[in-house]
Parts: sequence; C-alpha cells; structure tokens
Amino acid sequence: MRKSIKQGPLQSLFADRQQLEQYILENLRSFTGSLNNHHTFYKGRLSPIESLSEIVKWPLTTKEDLLTFPPSDWWHTDIPLLQFQSSSGSQGKPFVTAYTKNDLFLFSEAVGRCLEHAGVKKGDTLHNAYGYGLFTGGIGLHLGARHLDLRVIPASSGQSLRQVELIHMLRPGVIAATPSYLVHLIELYNTTYGEDFPPKIALVGAEPWSELTKNWIEKHSKMAALNIYGLSEIIGPGVAQNGVYHEGSMLWEDLFYPEIVDPNTGQTMPEGSWGELVLTSFTREATPLVRYRTGDVTRLLPPVDDLPFRRIDRIRGRTDDMIKVKGVKLFVSDIESVLGSFSSELSPYFEVQITQNAQDPVTLILEVMSPETLSIQHLQNLIKSRFGVTLPIRVVPPNTLPRVEQGKSKKVKYL
Amino acid sequence: MRKSIKQGPLQSLFADRQQLEQYILENLRSFTGSLNNHHTFYKGRLSPIESLSEIVKWPLTTKEDLLTFPPSDWWHTDIPLLQFQSSSGSQGKPFVTAYTKNDLFLFSEAVGRCLEHAGVKKGDTLHNAYGYGLFTGGIGLHLGARHLDLRVIPASSGQSLRQVELIHMLRPGVIAATPSYLVHLIELYNTTYGEDFPPKIALVGAEPWSELTKNWIEKHSKMAALNIYGLSEIIGPGVAQNGVYHEGSMLWEDLFYPEIVDPNTGQTMPEGSWGELVLTSFTREATPLVRYRTGDVTRLLPPVDDLPFRRIDRIRGRTDDMIKVKGVKLFVSDIESVLGSFSSELSPYFEVQITQNAQDPVTLILEVMSPETLSIQHLQNLIKSRFGVTLPIRVVPPNTLPRVEQGKSKKVKYL
Repeated sequence: MRKSIKQGPLQSLFADRQQLEQYILENLRSFTGSLNNHHTFYKGRLSPIESLSEIVKWPLTTKEDLLTFPPSDWWHTDIPLLQFQSSSGSQGKPFVTAYTKNDLFLFSEAVGRCLEHAGVKKGDTLHNAYGYGLFTGGIGLHLGARHLDLRVIPASSGQSLRQVELIHMLRPGVIAATPSYLVHLIELYNTTYGEDFPPKIALVGAEPWSELTKNWIEKHSKMAALNIYGLSEIIGPGVAQNGVYHEGSMLWEDLFYPEIVDPNTGQTMPEGSWGELVLTSFTREATPLVRYRTGDVTRLLPPVDDLPFRRIDRIRGRTDDMIKVKGVKLFVSDIESVLGSFSSELSPYFEVQITQNAQDPVTLILEVMSPETLSIQHLQNLIKSRFGVTLPIRVVPPNTLPRVEQGKSKKVKYL
Repeated sequence: MRKSIKQGPLQSLFADRQQLEQYILENLRSFTGSLNNHHTFYKGRLSPIESLSEIVKWPLTTKEDLLTFPPSDWWHTDIPLLQFQSSSGSQGKPFVTAYTKNDLFLFSEAVGRCLEHAGVKKGDTLHNAYGYGLFTGGIGLHLGARHLDLRVIPASSGQSLRQVELIHMLRPGVIAATPSYLVHLIELYNTTYGEDFPPKIALVGAEPWSELTKNWIEKHSKMAALNIYGLSEIIGPGVAQNGVYHEGSMLWEDLFYPEIVDPNTGQTMPEGSWGELVLTSFTREATPLVRYRTGDVTRLLPPVDDLPFRRIDRIRGRTDDMIKVKGVKLFVSDIESVLGSFSSELSPYFEVQITQNAQDPVTLILEVMSPETLSIQHLQNLIKSRFGVTLPIRVVPPNTLPRVEQGKSKKVKYL
C-alpha cells in the first residue's frame, strides 16, 4: 500500500534509503507483472527482475512509441478513466494521457508534496497562473492546492492586467507560473503599483530555466523561486520539487522511479552523470509508462535534508533542443547560465537565432537594461572560455524582445 | 440540513411544493438572521419575515452595490475561503466571488443536478469547452462532472482544431460550451471529418441564445441542445437547467430562491410576467447575496415533470442589452427568435448594428447560406408584424461574420 502525505509530513514516509528501495522494488515488480499479463503495449515485454539494477532488462519507451501506437494501446481501461489531459505538443503531435480516480489522487498527492516541500502551509493563498484546461499545469497545481486545503485563485494564463489586479487585491503568498510568464507578471505589477510583488514563494516550471531567470525573479521580488518539475506523460507537475535549503529538486522516487541514460545510446549512465532522465510511473493506473525517455537532460544528486529521495539537478535543456555551434553541443540554458553569472543587470530576455548562414550560424540577441555598462567583448570571452566557441552577440534596447502573454517562451528562433 | 443529490434522484428531494416552500422559508430565515447580525454589508438591513411573500421587505442588491463596496464587505470570512472566481466583466468591472469548502460542494451539487436533469449518466464522457480559470464555466462544469464521476475532457476554450481532434478520438456523449462556440465547433468538425458530431447532449449557456441557434445546432448534429443557466455572483453555472421533455429551465429553488421584478421600478411582478430575475443564494457561505438583481430578463413558469421546482423561461436578454428602435423596446434574442421561426436555412450568424444615423439607427446584418432562397421583404414584414417596426436588412455571404474562437459572442455592434 502506498502511504499518503495526509498521514503525516514527508519525513515520516520512509525510515531510510534501504526501506525506500525495497518498497520501490516490490511495487515495480507487481506493477510490471500486471502490465506483462494485461497491457496492450507492454504485454510479454517485461520479464521478472530480482533487483532494482535489473530494470535495464526492460525496453525504453519513447515519445515516438506513444505517438506511433493508438492511445488505446497505452490506456489501461480495466478501471474507469475519469479524466484526460494532453501534452502541449510543443515537440510535435500531443499525447493524450488518462487518469483513473486513484490517478487523480496520485496527482493531488504528488503536487501536494511539492507545495509542502516548497514551504507552503495550510491557509496560504496560491495564485495559479499555469494554464488550465488540457495542459496539466493549471489543473495539477489546483489539485495539489485542494489536497492541502489552500486558497486558490485559478487565474490560468493570459489577461495579465486582470491577474496583477487580483494579486494586488488578494495578496497571495504563493504563485505558480512558467518562468517567462512570471517575469512578465512581476514587471507588470511593479509598473502598475510601484510596490513589492506580494507572494513570497514561486513554483516555477514547465520550461527549462536557469540561474539568470532565478536571479532576476528573486532580485525583483521578495520570493524564493523554486523549480517544480513534471510532464504530462508521467502525471503532470509534481514529479520533483526544489526546496529552499538545497540545490536541485527532490524527486518522489516512491511514485516515479528515475534513471539517467545516454541520449544517443540509451545506455544507463554512471551515478552523477549528465544525461537523459528516464522515468517509470509505477503507481499510475490509466497510462502507466515503463522507462519513459523524458527528453529532459539533467543528472541525479544524492539524498539530502533527512529525506531518502534522490534529487535531479536543473534541467539543462531538452535532448531535441540542443544546438551545435562549430561542432560544440550547447543547450540554450547553458548560455543562460553564463549570462546569469556574468551580470545581474541583464534582463532575462534573450533569444538565440539560428540561421543557415555558414559564417555565423548562431547569434545571441540580448535585451540589455543599460547598454553602456555591458562589455560585449568580456561576455564573449566568458562564453569562449566556458564552451570554446565564439558567439556573435547583438544588443537590443529594453522592451524589444517579445513578452510571453500565455504558454511557454520560445528562446530559440530559426531564421 | 440540506439534502444532497448523492442521497438519490432529484425526485426524492421534496415530497411536494408545500414541503419545498416550508424548507425555503425556514432556511431563508436562519440565513438572513445570521447575515443581519454578522455580515458587513447586510448587518441591520434584514428584518425578520413570517412568510415567503414578506421577502419584499428586504432591499434588492445590485451589481452596482457589489462594485461600490470593497470585496471584503461581501465576503463572509468567519469560515476559511478556499477559492476565488470572477465574473467575465462583460458589463464593466468584474466582481470577485469567493467559495468555502461547503460552497465548492454546493457548486458541485448544483451542476451535478443540471447534468443529471439533462440526462447525463455515470460513465458518460463530457467534453468541457467552457473556459477554465477565473470564469466559472469551466471549473463549474468540471466540479459537477466530478460529483457524478463522469469522464472529463477539460478542453477549455480556444485551440478549436485540437478540440475537434479530441472529440473525434474520444467520442464524448456530452458537450458543454457557449452557443456561439458550439456552433463554431460543429462547423469545424463537419468540415474536418464530414461525419456526425458525436455528442448526443449539449449543455449550452453563458450568453442569451434563442430558438434560431437551438434549431441550427439540433439540425447540424444529433444533439439535444439544453440550456444551463447561472451566474458567478450567485455560484456559477448550475442555477437552472433545461431538460429534454419540457420548456424552460428547472431552477433549484432550495438552493437559489427566485423572484421576478420590474426592471424599471424593482417592484415584484405578478406570477408569469416577463421581468428581471432576482435571486437569493441562501445556502452560500462565502459570498451570500440577498435579492440580487441578475440583469437577466425572463419569467417564472410553474413546476412540471413531478419536480416541485419552478422553471425560468428562456433568457430574452439583459436589462442593459435592450435596444430601442423608434420607441419600441427590443432584445437581440427577440430578433433571433423571429429569424428562427422564419427559415431553418438561415445561418446562426447575424449582427445588429447600431449607428448614430437618425434615419436607420439599427441595421440587421444576416449571413445567409443561399441568398437566392431568402425573401428580405417577407422577413421584414414578419418583423414588422411582430414588433411594429421596420428593420433595414443587409445580407452578406456565408463565412463573412466573425466566428467566436473564445469566450462570448458580440451580436450587437455599435458603430
């Protein structure tokens, strides 16, 4: 039986790492045993395992698998399906994921744990600016907030002026949003009211973001900007959560089992290596996935803070978002990290333009608050010393690059 | 104690009209007694009453009252507030309404009754195309569906092509949407797949609509298009519901007590008169409203179908949406009704243009499928014989007038 957070604080769930691993192994085995007998896609593919390390015997599942086979091959329809959600489809055709009653509870509990771990308390008000609807962000945070009996302002995304009016009126202590939209809301709030943004905690996710944006948010508000991680194929937000007192995001391994593989070969990588995150949602009833390749590049960090769960480091990018500059592999968030370390005066707005031009195939466009203080030469040297390549940089005035009114930002522009 | 629909079918709630009225009176009295002692706005304004007819002793509450006094004057904050929603603000500044845990249950139950009364059954799939977020439509229908353990596709509004793909894939039996958006979805579905629109029941509301649109929807699909009525100030959708076998919409009088008043004087009108609907939300904890002027013009109809509840007739329009043509008061939905009776070949798209031009201050713009079959003279005669005025009519080709991608349609255009 899975324990519920309702039974007590996170610390009380497992005595130690060994107990957690034993629990995971037992549940993985019974879960895959059932899939092996009854599931349309996995039937006959999952042989028994004796230890956690034997998980590599099972095949990896890819986004391509999800889209090649009909949805009904993925749904476990013995139990009534009560809800459908959908990935944003930003990397192509969206996948329709399903939820049973237990899955909706799992979703509530996972997000509830994230909120608790971020320091949110009963009685707090959450301004939820994730989009509601088929996207899992809005409904997911809403379920988590209900789990903890929080007050919710279901703002969804868009109508930003209306949102800052509500934030001004209702003074929420917590806000959830994509990083790009949160930056937009803070700018708009400061311009409109000329006072501190009221929330103290921000749950930020649904797109890769770096120290640059984190620093900007924390400098322009009184908030701790904490990463919430998840994906609709697995459950939605709620897979992992950054707390105030540690790096990386705590991953609820008793709900979603993680591995890191080489994005090119699919081979398991040594403890601590950067690679592609693979997740097994072994308590999910309606759309269970075994060894699902998330496409997100990160690494596993050891447990911390008296909790037995391993953490994931920041998401460096997506395996399919990698750009190549003169043979060097770069993620957009790597560039963002350098920008963050370079100057706290930089706006979090930048764009990487990719052209067919063989001479300068990649250009970095920076929106700069006070251009006179920026040494482009210095920044170029820093990038060169970190990655070994020289990026052409173009500086544009404040408020030039497009703001995100809704959804996710596009930081890479193909010309 | 309020009975819950979970205890059985609607028919079992009250033995007869007398028992219902006794229940309403008792609950109204204890509710207003408490408001009279503790509520910021109503304190000292609500004297005791001995019979339901004495309700006229209490003052009417207007939208202007809601917006003049701060939200905290309206919120009953002794009980924790768990959620906020907002009116769409289409008639000006929006009102922020609050919900306690019991209010969220009340909301679920009211919408659940509507779904049940519309013929929806456990196991059915609801495609919910009402906007999620601060607007009460999306979240309200979602709560009602959860109450009955339906399957939900939380489509929200927008991304219409994605919506028809999901309808094609998941074959929902029920759909909820504004009438203008539903017409758009049906047109898009038919064009894309060239087959019948799968749902059998449509819950249509959030804007006034008439026989013209109902006929069009029912002709271009296999659905019964049933009106769902409500407003965020009172609770959201769920106040009243049209069933298949009767005219008008059953109003849950044990939750929301109705009256009809003269829109000009505020005086109670005789049984059966057309006038402004006034509602008292006497089981609502967080934002209770006494004798709230909804701005919606309708009339009360007697109980039917073995249920003790009175019904409301179709919403003719809003008190503030009335147009005057040469001294004659007309609602846009009146014009729509004539169009509906005139020809089933008319598209549901039309616009009323109001200009400063003294000669022809009001023009009716009609989108017509096959202009050769339409006799403008005949239609003008029909309008003249019904309302005593002649409306200039301009005919435009199919697909000329704007489609509603999101939110509510604007059928009156001021030039």
